[in-house]
Amino acid sequence: MKLEVVTIGTELLLGHTVDSNAAELGRALAAAGAEITRRTTVADRPDPIRAAVAEALERTAFVLTTGGLGPTRDDMTKGVVAELFGKRLVLDEGLLASIEARFQRLGRPMPAVNRTQAEVPEGATVLPNPRGTAPGLWLEDGRGRVAVLLPGVPREMRGLLVEEVLPRIARRDTGGGGGRPRVVLSRTVRTTGVSESALAERIGPIEAEIGPLTLAYLPSTDGVDLRLTAWSLAQGDAETRLATAATRLRALVGEHWYGEDGADLAAVVLDALRKGRQRLGVAESCTGGLVAKRITDVPGASDTFIGGVVAYADVIKTAALKVPLETLQAHGAVSEETVRAMAEGAQRLFSAEASIAVTGIAGPGGGTPEKPVGTVWLAARVHTDTRAVTRVFPGDRDEIRLRSAQASLDLLRRLLARA
Amino acid sequence: MKLEVVTIGTELLLGHTVDSNAAELGRALAAAGAEITRRTTVADRPDPIRAAVAEALERTAFVLTTGGLGPTRDDMTKGVVAELFGKRLVLDEGLLASIEARFQRLGRPMPAVNRTQAEVPEGATVLPNPRGTAPGLWLEDGRGRVAVLLPGVPREMRGLLVEEVLPRIARRDTGGGGGRPRVVLSRTVRTTGVSESALAERIGPIEAEIGPLTLAYLPSTDGVDLRLTAWSLAQGDAETRLATAATRLRALVGEHWYGEDGADLAAVVLDALRKGRQRLGVAESCTGGLVAKRITDVPGASDTFIGGVVAYADVIKTAALKVPLETLQAHGAVSEETVRAMAEGAQRLFSAEASIAVTGIAGPGGGTPEKPVGTVWLAARVHTDTRAVTRVFPGDRDEIRLRSAQASLDLLRRLLARA
Repeated sequence: MKLEVVTIGTELLLGHTVDSNAAELGRALAAAGAEITRRTTVADRPDPIRAAVAEALERTAFVLTTGGLGPTRDDMTKGVVAELFGKRLVLDEGLLASIEARFQRLGRPMPAVNRTQAEVPEGATVLPNPRGTAPGLWLEDGRGRVAVLLPGVPREMRGLLVEEVLPRIARRDTGGGGGRPRVVLSRTVRTTGVSESALAERIGPIEAEIGPLTLAYLPSTDGVDLRLTAWSLAQGDAETRLATAATRLRALVGEHWYGEDGADLAAVVLDALRKGRQRLGVAESCTGGLVAKRITDVPGASDTFIGGVVAYADVIKTAALKVPLETLQAHGAVSEETVRAMAEGAQRLFSAEASIAVTGIAGPGGGTPEKPVGTVWLAARVHTDTRAVTRVFPGDRDEIRLRSAQASLDLLRRLLARA
Repeated sequence: MKLEVVTIGTELLLGHTVDSNAAELGRALAAAGAEITRRTTVADRPDPIRAAVAEALERTAFVLTTGGLGPTRDDMTKGVVAELFGKRLVLDEGLLASIEARFQRLGRPMPAVNRTQAEVPEGATVLPNPRGTAPGLWLEDGRGRVAVLLPGVPREMRGLLVEEVLPRIARRDTGGGGGRPRVVLSRTVRTTGVSESALAERIGPIEAEIGPLTLAYLPSTDGVDLRLTAWSLAQGDAETRLATAATRLRALVGEHWYGEDGADLAAVVLDALRKGRQRLGVAESCTGGLVAKRITDVPGASDTFIGGVVAYADVIKTAALKVPLETLQAHGAVSEETVRAMAEGAQRLFSAEASIAVTGIAGPGGGTPEKPVGTVWLAARVHTDTRAVTRVFPGDRDEIRLRSAQASLDLLRRLLARA
């Protein structure tokens, strides 16, 4: 089935709030087999809400809204949609009792404005919301049009979606008789250390063959994700096609592949280290703790990760990591010699089998013609084998640090894969 | 002026990507005096893109799109919009040369697919994009319709918006003559270490007096931000009212205030240390590098921040930080005694005047009835003065780590303020 989503809130248009509900709805509805064909965001005002909901109903006859269900004057979704369906608002005594009970539990008198929250469009199904005072509403008319109204507070929206809305959508899909339900499913192949256009040259030849799946290239500071999507296929068919296509992509991507879907490179590296019973220490300069943070983001890292040194001042490179003063003076802090000495120093300090070292110029200051901002030296070491590479990363300070951390983890991943 | 935004990307509808561009556009355009009346999101397919852009042009005659400008087959915005404007795509030789030069600088041959990026709708203004290969495009026709096409990669979108689009919009606005422009402006007062409801008790009495400004409480893992917004006032009036209200809030918030607007607590702490000519070292366990990362996120941190130790394994707490083994055995790694010894150890190791130490249980494993997941000990030390506190933070592993890092910085901020 196809539907449209209308998110309502002036703060969304003004950008004061990032529309995280929209992404959550997208994932949950796609997984339940419903395809969102369009998403519209409008302000908390009757005319734009009316226009957006009416147009969406014309196109897909099924619209889901978020926001504008609170007790205050700027909450007008319910009234507008009731009017579009030709229904008047009536007081729901059961709902009023439950809202009153909620305030009683909190030990507070119910403000008069909350009474309006117990008014619902005649004939609507009330979707109980144990997390707040605004219930969800499900309106359906004789012409087969459906409007589902959810509150905008993320945890309330999520609860109603999972407990009330998705089961109803699944029942409609199958209950309507005829045909197995169709789903929208995606699968992502993650790559790093290779550009979007270089990937396109490798993959281009098979893009036509993987239809009816679609393929999107999604570059970020972590690398390029390749997202395959199956649109409105039967579940089993979608899964089979996605698995086949992902396998083909993985083969074409080769050594740049590091995982699928939500795979995190730090977790991939920790797994590889665990297999080899190797423990890890880190020495980082320009990334300033980010590499260690990436690793310790992974629950259970403590069985493999011993620790890290953020050697921001050169004196710590010599004192804690035993980088020879002569090396620093002869080659500079951002050099192959220094990064190799840092990797050895981290290995020794943490009594670890493996180590990562990063030193570079994240900017905005500190660049020179020979070593511009973005210049980074990376090293990975396993036992006595060290690999060191240099990169000049584009972007601002944040991006250079993110790319450096990812590249340092990738260097160790590649070194471990070779062994 | 009014305009509509169309964000293009299947991954946005499916919720695999949160539409952060949309929020950024909203803030920047509102500040420039332009009002977004609707935002529409559609998939990377010609028909939905055509419909959304055509409808937006009908309503406001000015549409801004993001996404679908890359070199690959799923990037089709340019062709569809050119068709709507009745223009054909022509090769822009200057643009081709600049894309080729970009690849040359990176020392790589230009893949053939990137040539399509040099094709532009006839008569369009090319908005140069130094951050990537997809330029922005500005199309305008004899009927006064405008379409501005920006890439979807956030840093490229942001650069083009600030450098190319906003100045053009400002020139259009004033060029039209008549009336002073009205703006939507916001100002944020940042607090930490105090709950939303405790703040509401302090601030409540003046909420009515700050009208026509509105006040929103925005809690996050960093604390509670208080956002004041002036809606559609003349620039000068808005600025004066916001400044007055921000000053009143600051006085009421007291010691929990740490800055305004984009203020970052790590930068605030570094500034305070600089004033006292004190340098900083960090020892962290459960935050795993996050405290050091927060500090080194700040450009220029290197004059004050010496370094950090991520003492993830207990052996590093004793070896690098000289926490006595008896302390660890008698009181455990998450204890006042240990965190105090860590702060002293960091101060000594880095020869720093000030230090921060963090040790705790970020979960998901490792909790006990006496020390549940979320239990954290924090210490800040300046010269011989140490302050240690314990907290039990709510949330998941990520949230506990974020809250711990922020609270550790705040502890040092308060200690420095007292001196």
